[in-house]
Amino acid sequence: ARTGDPEVVYGAGKTPEQVLTLLHDLHEAHPDRAVLATRLTPEAHDVIAAALPEATLDAVARTVTYGPLPEPHGTVAVIAAGTSDGPVAAEAAVTVRAFGARAERITDVGVAGIHRILEARPRFADADALIVIAGMEGALPSVVGGLVGIPLVAVPTSVGYGANFGGLSALLGMLNSCAPGVVVVNIDNGFGAGVHAARIARAVGAQAGR
Amino acid sequence: ARTGDPEVVYGAGKTPEQVLTLLHDLHEAHPDRAVLATRLTPEAHDVIAAALPEATLDAVARTVTYGPLPEPHGTVAVIAAGTSDGPVAAEAAVTVRAFGARAERITDVGVAGIHRILEARPRFADADALIVIAGMEGALPSVVGGLVGIPLVAVPTSVGYGANFGGLSALLGMLNSCAPGVVVVNIDNGFGAGVHAARIARAVGAQAGR
Amino acid sequence: ARTGDPEVVYGAGKTPEQVLTLLHDLHEAHPDRAVLATRLTPEAHDVIAAALPEATLDAVARTVTYGPLPEPHGTVAVIAAGTSDGPVAAEAAVTVRAFGARAERITDVGVAGIHRILEARPRFADADALIVIAGMEGALPSVVGGLVGIPLVAVPTSVGYGANFGGLSALLGMLNSCAPGVVVVNIDNGFGAGVHAARIARAVGAQAGR
Amino acid sequence: ARTGDPEVVYGAGKTPEQVLTLLHDLHEAHPDRAVLATRLTPEAHDVIAAALPEATLDAVARTVTYGPLPEPHGTVAVIAAGTSDGPVAAEAAVTVRAFGARAERITDVGVAGIHRILEARPRFADADALIVIAGMEGALPSVVGGLVGIPLVAVPTSVGYGANFGGLSALLGMLNSCAPGVVVVNIDNGFGAGVHAARIARAVGAQAGR
Amino acid sequence: ARTGDPEVVYGAGKTPEQVLTLLHDLHEAHPDRAVLATRLTPEAHDVIAAALPEATLDAVARTVTYGPLPEPHGTVAVIAAGTSDGPVAAEAAVTVRAFGARAERITDVGVAGIHRILEARPRFADADALIVIAGMEGALPSVVGGLVGIPLVAVPTSVGYGANFGGLSALLGMLNSCAPGVVVVNIDNGFGAGVHAARIARAVGAQAGR
Amino acid sequence: ARTGDPEVVYGAGKTPEQVLTLLHDLHEAHPDRAVLATRLTPEAHDVIAAALPEATLDAVARTVTYGPLPEPHGTVAVIAAGTSDGPVAAEAAVTVRAFGARAERITDVGVAGIHRILEARPRFADADALIVIAGMEGALPSVVGGLVGIPLVAVPTSVGYGANFGGLSALLGMLNSCAPGVVVVNIDNGFGAGVHAARIARAVGAQAGR
Amino acid sequence: ARTGDPEVVYGAGKTPEQVLTLLHDLHEAHPDRAVLATRLTPEAHDVIAAALPEATLDAVARTVTYGPLPEPHGTVAVIAAGTSDGPVAAEAAVTVRAFGARAERITDVGVAGIHRILEARPRFADADALIVIAGMEGALPSVVGGLVGIPLVAVPTSVGYGANFGGLSALLGMLNSCAPGVVVVNIDNGFGAGVHAARIARAVGAQAGR
Amino acid sequence: ARTGDPEVVYGAGKTPEQVLTLLHDLHEAHPDRAVLATRLTPEAHDVIAAALPEATLDAVARTVTYGPLPEPHGTVAVIAAGTSDGPVAAEAAVTVRAFGARAERITDVGVAGIHRILEARPRFADADALIVIAGMEGALPSVVGGLVGIPLVAVPTSVGYGANFGGLSALLGMLNSCAPGVVVVNIDNGFGAGVHAARIARAVGAQAGR
Ligand SMILES: Nc1ncnc2c1ncn2[C@@H]1O[C@H](COP(=O)(O)O)[C@@H](O)[C@H]1O
Ligand SMILES: Nc1ncnc2c1ncn2[C@@H]1O[C@H](COP(=O)(O)O)[C@@H](O)[C@H]1O
Ligand SMILES: Nc1ncnc2c1ncn2[C@@H]1O[C@H](COP(=O)(O)O)[C@@H](O)[C@H]1O
Ligand SMILES: Nc1ncnc2c1ncn2[C@@H]1O[C@H](COP(=O)(O)O)[C@@H](O)[C@H]1O
Ligand SMILES: [Mg+2]
Ligand SMILES: [Mg+2]
Ligand SMILES: [Mg+2]
Ligand SMILES: [Mg+2]
Ligand SMILES: [Mg+2]
Ligand SMILES: [Mg+2]
Ligand SMILES: [Mg+2]
Ligand SMILES: [Mg+2]
Repeated sequence: ARTGDPEVVYGAGKTPEQVLTLLHDLHEAHPDRAVLATRLTPEAHDVIAAALPEATLDAVARTVTYGPLPEPHGTVAVIAAGTSDGPVAAEAAVTVRAFGARAERITDVGVAGIHRILEARPRFADADALIVIAGMEGALPSVVGGLVGIPLVAVPTSVGYGANFGGLSALLGMLNSCAPGVVVVNIDNGFGAGVHAARIARAVGAQAGR
Repeated sequence: ARTGDPEVVYGAGKTPEQVLTLLHDLHEAHPDRAVLATRLTPEAHDVIAAALPEATLDAVARTVTYGPLPEPHGTVAVIAAGTSDGPVAAEAAVTVRAFGARAERITDVGVAGIHRILEARPRFADADALIVIAGMEGALPSVVGGLVGIPLVAVPTSVGYGANFGGLSALLGMLNSCAPGVVVVNIDNGFGAGVHAARIARAVGAQAGR
Repeated sequence: ARTGDPEVVYGAGKTPEQVLTLLHDLHEAHPDRAVLATRLTPEAHDVIAAALPEATLDAVARTVTYGPLPEPHGTVAVIAAGTSDGPVAAEAAVTVRAFGARAERITDVGVAGIHRILEARPRFADADALIVIAGMEGALPSVVGGLVGIPLVAVPTSVGYGANFGGLSALLGMLNSCAPGVVVVNIDNGFGAGVHAARIARAVGAQAGR
Repeated sequence: ARTGDPEVVYGAGKTPEQVLTLLHDLHEAHPDRAVLATRLTPEAHDVIAAALPEATLDAVARTVTYGPLPEPHGTVAVIAAGTSDGPVAAEAAVTVRAFGARAERITDVGVAGIHRILEARPRFADADALIVIAGMEGALPSVVGGLVGIPLVAVPTSVGYGANFGGLSALLGMLNSCAPGVVVVNIDNGFGAGVHAARIARAVGAQAGR
Repeated sequence: ARTGDPEVVYGAGKTPEQVLTLLHDLHEAHPDRAVLATRLTPEAHDVIAAALPEATLDAVARTVTYGPLPEPHGTVAVIAAGTSDGPVAAEAAVTVRAFGARAERITDVGVAGIHRILEARPRFADADALIVIAGMEGALPSVVGGLVGIPLVAVPTSVGYGANFGGLSALLGMLNSCAPGVVVVNIDNGFGAGVHAARIARAVGAQAGR
Repeated sequence: ARTGDPEVVYGAGKTPEQVLTLLHDLHEAHPDRAVLATRLTPEAHDVIAAALPEATLDAVARTVTYGPLPEPHGTVAVIAAGTSDGPVAAEAAVTVRAFGARAERITDVGVAGIHRILEARPRFADADALIVIAGMEGALPSVVGGLVGIPLVAVPTSVGYGANFGGLSALLGMLNSCAPGVVVVNIDNGFGAGVHAARIARAVGAQAGR
Repeated sequence: ARTGDPEVVYGAGKTPEQVLTLLHDLHEAHPDRAVLATRLTPEAHDVIAAALPEATLDAVARTVTYGPLPEPHGTVAVIAAGTSDGPVAAEAAVTVRAFGARAERITDVGVAGIHRILEARPRFADADALIVIAGMEGALPSVVGGLVGIPLVAVPTSVGYGANFGGLSALLGMLNSCAPGVVVVNIDNGFGAGVHAARIARAVGAQAGR
Repeated sequence: ARTGDPEVVYGAGKTPEQVLTLLHDLHEAHPDRAVLATRLTPEAHDVIAAALPEATLDAVARTVTYGPLPEPHGTVAVIAAGTSDGPVAAEAAVTVRAFGARAERITDVGVAGIHRILEARPRFADADALIVIAGMEGALPSVVGGLVGIPLVAVPTSVGYGANFGGLSALLGMLNSCAPGVVVVNIDNGFGAGVHAARIARAVGAQAGR
């Protein structure tokens, strides 16, 4: 792993036992570093909780972190449009922390409620990087990106139905954002957004001595 | 045509002469009613201007209206995100007027500039119906629809490039709008939005005696 | 909520308990206003029926309304192509009523049976707005829109198979309708159509004193 | 070529000279049989008109027939939704005749004008096969197929814009027709529909001695 | 129903009881005519077998026919590429018979085994119409259509995986067939192909007195 | 370049002068080896013909080869469905030769003419590799692959219209071929098929001493 | 089957009993030749293990081979990007062996770990053909194809989520590979890649006497 | 404009005169700040060169910058796969500079030439942010992202043909990158990547005093 990055286990398509073994082995090999596992089933969570009581589980994020977390530098604001986007936001926040930055969650702001976004603005205006998560039309990054000039990663989610086509509407919306500098990750990929944003925040924060 | 509706000529794929003949014949048959022609080429405009000096041409909207316009009832606010959406907005406005309502144009408001939308709010808050036009991510209807409870028709435009896919991103965004009650027409279809909105506005306006 | 609109809970992806809490809390906060919950599972219905006996459940529409409904103004005709489109039609009708208009259901009319549509015409010719629902090729709005000049909202449904692609065929058909002024909502979105149509009908009806 | 079928030259992507040579050579080889060439450019038409004065050119259909046409049996009604579908209808009609059946053109009937379809019904109710052509939402075959039980071939056209996606909306609409027994050919493929329908009509007509 | 057509019940999305009631009621109303029900679940089959012992069930075709079948005229050859296409072929064959023609099944011929197709040729060369069914690349209709000039309906099936996209590859292949006159129905729509082909065969056969 | 491979210049998007310079420089650097340039415009051909008279131009293939061709080993049969596929077949054949194998062209065989394919079989039955090119439904590789067990590369072409979607129908057809072992390259990519097939043929041929 | 090819049973959509019967009958008919069955369920495996103890089962590949394997000639390197691609790689390897070549597995090399690919290079640099398997962005074939000039078959897998669209991203990536000569099979089609590669390797290997 | 950001004019769909007026007016309003215009036609370049001799034109990037550039902080490496991606890379580099960071161009590295990427590694290993541009399969970001842990923005380009679908293959490839933390912008959107990367680099660089 590169300086500041934890070891990572992608849990999808792995048995609980496989995940457990990977967590254990990576921790043995790198006892001074965190291991992050994502996309875990409840079954994997149960197996890990029993076998590794000192691991930290997040049921909503579907993650486990194990081993010492790095000292955090800088801050990432994680902004989510709706409660159904909660798991993606949680995965992003856990990843940000495991990759060495602080995560600040801002929830329940959506484009159809502009005033709540404006009210929340002070809470993200000083962050080093933003992660903005939305399903359906995926418009939230355009609105947030119009309010501040901070590096912003947009995460489309698969929340929706019909012509949402599994997150395609939000993905296309974000790729075509009229706010300059919006960058996008795969549908529901809170992890990828977290890695990118943490690397930004920890670089700025470390230089700034915070 | 139904009560209150003008005769309509769809100019795409017709020669200037075919359009001229249709305008002329429909006007002869219905001298008390307007004829509206849309999607006209500059060539068709030239031919019509020469042959029918009393017709009204709109070069941006690519339309002609001919014959007496109906007395207008009610108001439709036509809100456009960018100047590139101008032709679609103009087509919508001309159509609204020809179908018997007043059109109020509001331009240059976009989702990345929330404060301008909030400033413009009083100008559309009392309309009988709204037409909201946007290309790229097509997010403007969600923001406007979150501010007022007026019947709102969204028009996606083909403005954009790449993963815009000829207006698909705006179309999908609007179909998945998180603002309740947003309805959508075909890409670049200012005419269809104008017909729908004018029918609403003229019904309300006529009942209200305005 | 805006004047005339009820509070709304979108039930998809929420647990029965979450829906119940939202219904309860929104009712407490707005005792003079209706709360509408949509997309409810049978389990959510059971939990709500037990806890809120005065709530009104609709098993086909998958909805609950709770609290005093607004006095209705104007009428929306809800026209459905087939019995399989029943749930969407029911969702639309319940929404229309909760948003302050009367809903008139017209069922079992389809484009392959033109005479039944013509027979039904008197039943929708005086409505203030129309909701026309169809799956498969989604052609019914074109036929109905060719018979009357009333504001018409088309709802594509996911009924069909194969090259229906989950409602895409009906959606594209309706967006390309050759009847002027047809507007469209997301696949299976009876709620959105109901909001839009109710807002039209209640505005016209209120002005007309009916 | 099979019994009753003419020789055919597909003109797309061929030079005028290549088409001319093919027409000439096929006619030499089969002087008792027709040769049909389709998808011809105006340039090819000019070259052929000059070189083969006895050939029959159709500028709208973009076809040439050369050599003796077969005696026709049976009748195919070719029904077209709009004037923009004219070239496809003409290609279908020329093909029907070259493949040994009579073609009866019925034009300017569309789903948004049901009464004109009902008026036209007697003109197609006794045909041996129907070709129904439509762009945009492609709904005409469903309406016509609901009126008669005659074998019906639907031809989607690329007429339209935006979410029409080059004829995809009409194609999907026709494939999902709720009228039983509707079969479909490629977008703008008047030729293919003509071949299929002529084979039906000439088989029935020949047996019936007409 | 039109002359020669049975009554039809589309079983998808209906409960066994709803199908049973429809079968019963349609039979009461038209005791001299067949009723065909398609897309039945095993549960519907069980309920119908118990309640209507004189009905004819086909487990592979997933159909029931009830009441007197029409006297058949003409013959439809139903040609299927593989055993996995069996249910679609069976649905087509049952439909052909219920719509008044004879169905001749030819199975296990595929494009990768040209010699078996050539061997089978005499068995379909005299049919009045052909139904050719194939999944995957859907090439069989092109090969069969190159061998005979009989009206041919192609049925794409959803058999396959990956870039088959639920039958899209076969559907597009058939729509682009280089054999002239190939017409296509929806993916897996043996019923639609059966209706079209039976109408052809019974018309020719009745005129020919067979 | 790897042993046996020539230098390659991809001409698309390059000016004639850029191509000329690359041909010249690569030839200087590797005087003992061929340079192959593909996708050349007529203008590039003219410039190269004037400047490099010893270069070999192929107007149909849109290629130039310059410098000594490698001694060929093994044979690749290049089979094309129609004359419109000629440029792709020519590009494949020129590439095969430049990459060190012999190319044998077999033209004008298509799936709708099975007997011509069977007649051509002896001409490709002993090749070391096959390239099979087809547009429209792209079925030819399935038929050819059912006749011989030779490594076969399928090339979809963009020849067609409508639901051909620029070669997508042929591409999907070939990817879903029911003949085992068919592999596919990009639409119109005769070059890629030529490289792969030449590498097979020259390896086998070299070992076999032919 | 062609010289050197085994008999093959495609297990998808077949009952365990159908697969067993086919294995048994093909073995009886060709006792000197292998029979390969693919895409088997665990249930089919159990039935076959009980009934045909001498058959060879591979639980990961989901295959059975039965009867004498051909003597192998030449070598195919089967390179897989990740452990989740294991079943596809195993299917390819079993197929290679059953079609008469040796399979050499190279696992756990991915484009984000270039050094491991470079380390693995000697293990595939002398193979007669390569199979390169990858999901997600499907980039591994471009990297491997840039290192060696051996015939290379790319297999996209459906591993991934979101904008992976069931393997579409890897499929498109491989079809557009910038490494010349990369050929592609259907998503997850280890079998097809194995057939093609084995035919190459056994031809070269047999000529080379290894 | 936000602190550090220049004024921006998006030139697509604007006349040379409109662009010139915007450049002039924005410069008047903000004489201390740069104005950046992108997507300019050669005609617009000519008009601007004549009218604003002190403006800086970049013919490849299709940009103009006018007014004083900000003092740069930090460095962005702009890595491009091929020469055809040159205009996108140039647009990115000009944007980076105008948004206040240094741009370092690295060209002609592609995934099929791994050694050149490894050689180039020292040139980007110390950058504050990376922009990686590629068409076709879009794999370069995965390889680069596997070598360093720097924030990386991937730009898909529309370079390619056939199943490239106007840049879709590269876009999907990059969204599914197996290298963690890769973020993506719209097809050909060098501007958006430049904005995002410059904001990162200038924040880090400013804190670090470089
Ligand atoms: N939630 C996630 N979404 C996408 N990629 C992930 C996710 N979690 C982990 N990864 C990636 O998966 C890699 C580990 O995969 P593996 O070796 O299969 O456990 C990491 O290096 C990450 O790049
Ligand atoms: N059936 C439905 N389809 C789409 N949107 C809905 C539906 N029902 C409710 N909504 C929207 O969901 C919002 C409430 O969402 P929530 O706060 O998650 O309960 C409402 O304001 C509506 O805009
Ligand atoms: N398998 C089938 N696929 C498509 N349409 C069918 C099928 N079976 C019946 N239908 C159609 O469904 C109609 C009856 O639908 P319903 O009234 O819902 O039972 C018939 O008139 C047919 O047009
Ligand atoms: N017709 C073609 N289609 C696809 N790729 C090609 C073609 N011709 C050449 N190439 C590739 O383009 C590379 C040379 O590209 P360039 O350096 O831009 O000239 C070669 O190594 C081939 O991989
Ligand atoms: Mg959302
Ligand atoms: Mg816009
Ligand atoms: Mg319907
Ligand atoms: Mg039409
Ligand atoms: Mg098949
Ligand atoms: Mg072809
Ligand atoms: Mg992979
Ligand atoms: Mg590239």
